[in-house]
Amino acid sequence: MIKSETKIRVRYGETDQMGYAYYGVYAQYYEVGRVEAMRLLGFSYKDVEERGIIMPVVDYTISYKKPAFYDDEITIVTTLKEIPTGVKIVFDYECYNSKNELLNIGKVTLVCINKNTNKMCKLPQWFIDAMHAFF
Amino acid sequence: MIKSETKIRVRYGETDQMGYAYYGVYAQYYEVGRVEAMRLLGFSYKDVEERGIIMPVVDYTISYKKPAFYDDEITIVTTLKEIPTGVKIVFDYECYNSKNELLNIGKVTLVCINKNTNKMCKLPQWFIDAMHAFF
Amino acid sequence: MIKSETKIRVRYGETDQMGYAYYGVYAQYYEVGRVEAMRLLGFSYKDVEERGIIMPVVDYTISYKKPAFYDDEITIVTTLKEIPTGVKIVFDYECYNSKNELLNIGKVTLVCINKNTNKMCKLPQWFIDAMHAFF
Amino acid sequence: MIKSETKIRVRYGETDQMGYAYYGVYAQYYEVGRVEAMRLLGFSYKDVEERGIIMPVVDYTISYKKPAFYDDEITIVTTLKEIPTGVKIVFDYECYNSKNELLNIGKVTLVCINKNTNKMCKLPQWFIDAMHAFF
Repeated sequence: MIKSETKIRVRYGETDQMGYAYYGVYAQYYEVGRVEAMRLLGFSYKDVEERGIIMPVVDYTISYKKPAFYDDEITIVTTLKEIPTGVKIVFDYECYNSKNELLNIGKVTLVCINKNTNKMCKLPQWFIDAMHAFF
Repeated sequence: MIKSETKIRVRYGETDQMGYAYYGVYAQYYEVGRVEAMRLLGFSYKDVEERGIIMPVVDYTISYKKPAFYDDEITIVTTLKEIPTGVKIVFDYECYNSKNELLNIGKVTLVCINKNTNKMCKLPQWFIDAMHAFF
Repeated sequence: MIKSETKIRVRYGETDQMGYAYYGVYAQYYEVGRVEAMRLLGFSYKDVEERGIIMPVVDYTISYKKPAFYDDEITIVTTLKEIPTGVKIVFDYECYNSKNELLNIGKVTLVCINKNTNKMCKLPQWFIDAMHAFF
Repeated sequence: MIKSETKIRVRYGETDQMGYAYYGVYAQYYEVGRVEAMRLLGFSYKDVEERGIIMPVVDYTISYKKPAFYDDEITIVTTLKEIPTGVKIVFDYECYNSKNELLNIGKVTLVCINKNTNKMCKLPQWFIDAMHAFF
């Protein structure tokens, strides 16, 4: 299992007039979470793209339990539970505030696409190999 | 059933370096869709808040089939399938590009909160009444 | 002179906890304004990029007089006062609410870059020619 | 003089199809910069609002020299050059990439508004007092 924790402070521009962090901003927070999870593997998502793979999101679900507020430092816990065997990779998320209250849980599924052919492809072997140290 | 169609043009700032409309931007597009669906009822979400109710999102799911690109004019089809009987209201979504290709489908569940008490409450009767004309 | 008026409705996700349209969102609104101004010329900014030119912003100034609020329909007035003679193009902006109150004024300067060489270049002749009808 | 340095990593959702950090995102980066500058004074902007003052932006200018790219760690240098004597406060900005190249410079002017009266007011004395240690 690969697990990473990323701290993010809610920006003013990310709040809405309800005074909550806007529900749409978690897509970015989750993205930051999985990028940091990948960095544990020894490479960045930037490297992935430079090696000819893009990984767009195909499924995204999130359940909101409590809001985050302006200037809150929240923790995104990103978990990769299984080594992918096909074209998809699944990240699970939990988000907590500084009182350790669960704010939301979610799941994001990405798919590998070969930039040259613009077709889906298996997760590359070097990516898989890097994951083995954690499982 | 209440069904509304909203056209939105993808802004440059909403694309990412993959050249796609960023996966996180659909939360805003869907929000615009349900606001326009409410307007069919004879009031705006702004009115709802002014009458003392806020409606934060509690669940959001989206499945992406195809990307939208910069300057595409996309159509958000927002559907309210049932008159809510409790504290929640569910909107179903389909998003199409100008070639009528399905880009993504989704669902957003909102909950009613009384601004004064900060507690969940049933959807107000005037809101329900406005919906009856459509069912 | 080329002048275009674009109406934009303030989205919920674009407000902040002050209840104002966030000061940073006008960069997007102004972008939409100049894209619509270009469309008057018979092509889109998308076409410009497909013809091998990108036009990043090099200067941006904005003075805020009054805020816009959620669900306000605002008007972006974009003006091109002069036909460019070099590598830069300047757009002037005024933004009004539906009561015709001036909300902000601004100016955005873009520069032409040849995508192949990644170097600055003059505004292409077909772009200039399209402008002559308006001056 | 008060000077603060804040590191921010460019998120994927903040890039555009040009591959640059979108020109509009610096409004948020600069906001983070001045919030961190205020924190040096012993309070947060959140505290300011809780004490009954809001500080909307009235002027914003930025000149872009070079783009930032996805995953770049950039440094926002925020400077407060003078203790304000009236209703306004001015922050100067420089933004650098990790090679220490200057990406952009800017200036943001905020104004103090009393939340109760919704009128402009002088910067409160406790705010001024906190600044004296730095000048």
